[in-house]
Amino acid sequence: MMCTMQDSVTEFEIIKRICSGKTTRDHRVLIGPGDDLALIQASAPGESSSGSDRMLLGVDQLVDGIHVDLSRVSLEEAGRKAVCRSLSDVAAMAGRPVATLVSAVVPAEWNDGQAMALFDAMKSAADEHHAPLVGGDLAVHHEPDGRLTCSVTVVGAPSDIGVVSRFDAEAGDGLYVTGELGGSWRGRHHLDFTPRLAESAMLLAILGNRLHAMIDISDGLGRDAAHMVERSDLQVIIDAESLPCREGFGVQQAVGDGEDYELLFAASGDVPEGLGNCAVTRIGAFKIKDDASDPDVLLRQNGDLSDISRAGWEHQSR
Amino acid sequence: MMCTMQDSVTEFEIIKRICSGKTTRDHRVLIGPGDDLALIQASAPGESSSGSDRMLLGVDQLVDGIHVDLSRVSLEEAGRKAVCRSLSDVAAMAGRPVATLVSAVVPAEWNDGQAMALFDAMKSAADEHHAPLVGGDLAVHHEPDGRLTCSVTVVGAPSDIGVVSRFDAEAGDGLYVTGELGGSWRGRHHLDFTPRLAESAMLLAILGNRLHAMIDISDGLGRDAAHMVERSDLQVIIDAESLPCREGFGVQQAVGDGEDYELLFAASGDVPEGLGNCAVTRIGAFKIKDDASDPDVLLRQNGDLSDISRAGWEHQSR
Repeated sequence: MMCTMQDSVTEFEIIKRICSGKTTRDHRVLIGPGDDLALIQASAPGESSSGSDRMLLGVDQLVDGIHVDLSRVSLEEAGRKAVCRSLSDVAAMAGRPVATLVSAVVPAEWNDGQAMALFDAMKSAADEHHAPLVGGDLAVHHEPDGRLTCSVTVVGAPSDIGVVSRFDAEAGDGLYVTGELGGSWRGRHHLDFTPRLAESAMLLAILGNRLHAMIDISDGLGRDAAHMVERSDLQVIIDAESLPCREGFGVQQAVGDGEDYELLFAASGDVPEGLGNCAVTRIGAFKIKDDASDPDVLLRQNGDLSDISRAGWEHQSR
Repeated sequence: MMCTMQDSVTEFEIIKRICSGKTTRDHRVLIGPGDDLALIQASAPGESSSGSDRMLLGVDQLVDGIHVDLSRVSLEEAGRKAVCRSLSDVAAMAGRPVATLVSAVVPAEWNDGQAMALFDAMKSAADEHHAPLVGGDLAVHHEPDGRLTCSVTVVGAPSDIGVVSRFDAEAGDGLYVTGELGGSWRGRHHLDFTPRLAESAMLLAILGNRLHAMIDISDGLGRDAAHMVERSDLQVIIDAESLPCREGFGVQQAVGDGEDYELLFAASGDVPEGLGNCAVTRIGAFKIKDDASDPDVLLRQNGDLSDISRAGWEHQSR
């Protein structure tokens, strides 16, 4: 269930290149690419900003054959998933959804009804989570076997308390996760999950500045925990026995399946065991690495430690 | 040079469907889909808004074989065009660019260098116009002949004076255009135009609330002038003799070629004949239709009147 990047063009390399851009840094970019979403301030540099002109922004694609398989998934499910994945990123930043924009290139053989089913599903999901669809663009593939490509941009507003980056965990923090993990793809959870927006807002309200870092699990627990420490000297140690595995699935699936769209967060002090109907489970802790070459994420199981920093999906092989 | 919609899925129908959505209207959407960009207020309904939390948003795609032909155009040119088209929409709303997000699905045979050339070109164009690239997503086609699809989301800030919709022309207004028209595709203007951001800001500063309506010419003069009156009882009459035709091209090209990315605007009173190095030409006027069934846009040439409301491109056949 684990894979590595094999394509001629790797997303990782491109994103890294964009992140490390050498052009003049723009003072309006408060958090750049690399986190779940970027944080932007609309005011021109030099102008005073009240904070109300700050927005969270991100874009994500859904491609038939990579993120969904339209031979097994309805257009309604695909459209819903495309929007909810992006809203999960708003939850990961502890933000509030504001708006959604979608674009798609659809197969040449589609009829109007199919295109409308897709857009209606995206619009419904966006409306349901108070992120109204305010822009759309549609094109039709010229090649006879061109498959659906779909891009979703999400706009969020940061909480008044602030945003929660994925990178700011501290040594001694506990690692927590909402809900259950594993089997998302086989169990179709990846098609009907609810973005953890309410839970995220509750967490921030309850924990305040003890909520140090947060990410949503899309790649997989191993890879996403590794993302949390990639800019620090921290190591994550996860206890296999504590993992809230979905019924019918085990530790391996919980660690590596991905697409759980649960919140994975670092916090200090007491953390509630539930948020409404949603369980919260402590699954590990952060410590400073003994050596810089130590693995980013270790799984402790039956007394053994294994490196799970690369456990998860690159989203190229589904 | 004129074409009509022939594809099984027509953008027009989809966009119309989105615009007329029956779900609860969201009070944060001040201008919805249908204008060059949407205008959104981030504050939740009921909260007071200082106006600084308003943003302009839009999304546009660039597809190989539709909007560019990568057998004749470099990746640098394609990337630049993708971003500049979106920035031209910010100009049309008299806004200020804030940020850009891009996503692409690239052909399976591309190497890293090709993907980076495309993203670098988009990043450069975005930086050049102070719309830093803050989000990106990349995927690779699985089909061997899948062609480049690229989506650009642009975020703008409205001017302190306000935004300029495409729909608010008044009877008696003059119709004006910046620069020259026609031959954009054959002359490659569509690959190296500069979004009219500076001119747009000057126009708003000079004309204030006499600048009633504005759009950028992408579909073509005929179709875009028709867009300006589609929600009103107005008719546009354009004088062929006044058209600022690009050297080597005539009235037919100026009316129907499209992709000029010039500003087309409605204003009352005196209008300057130039903005810096950019000419401004009065090419027609708005009047109330004698009959509701009258054409939206007429061209007066040698004493004859012809309906040019459909003159332009649907962007499906290039």
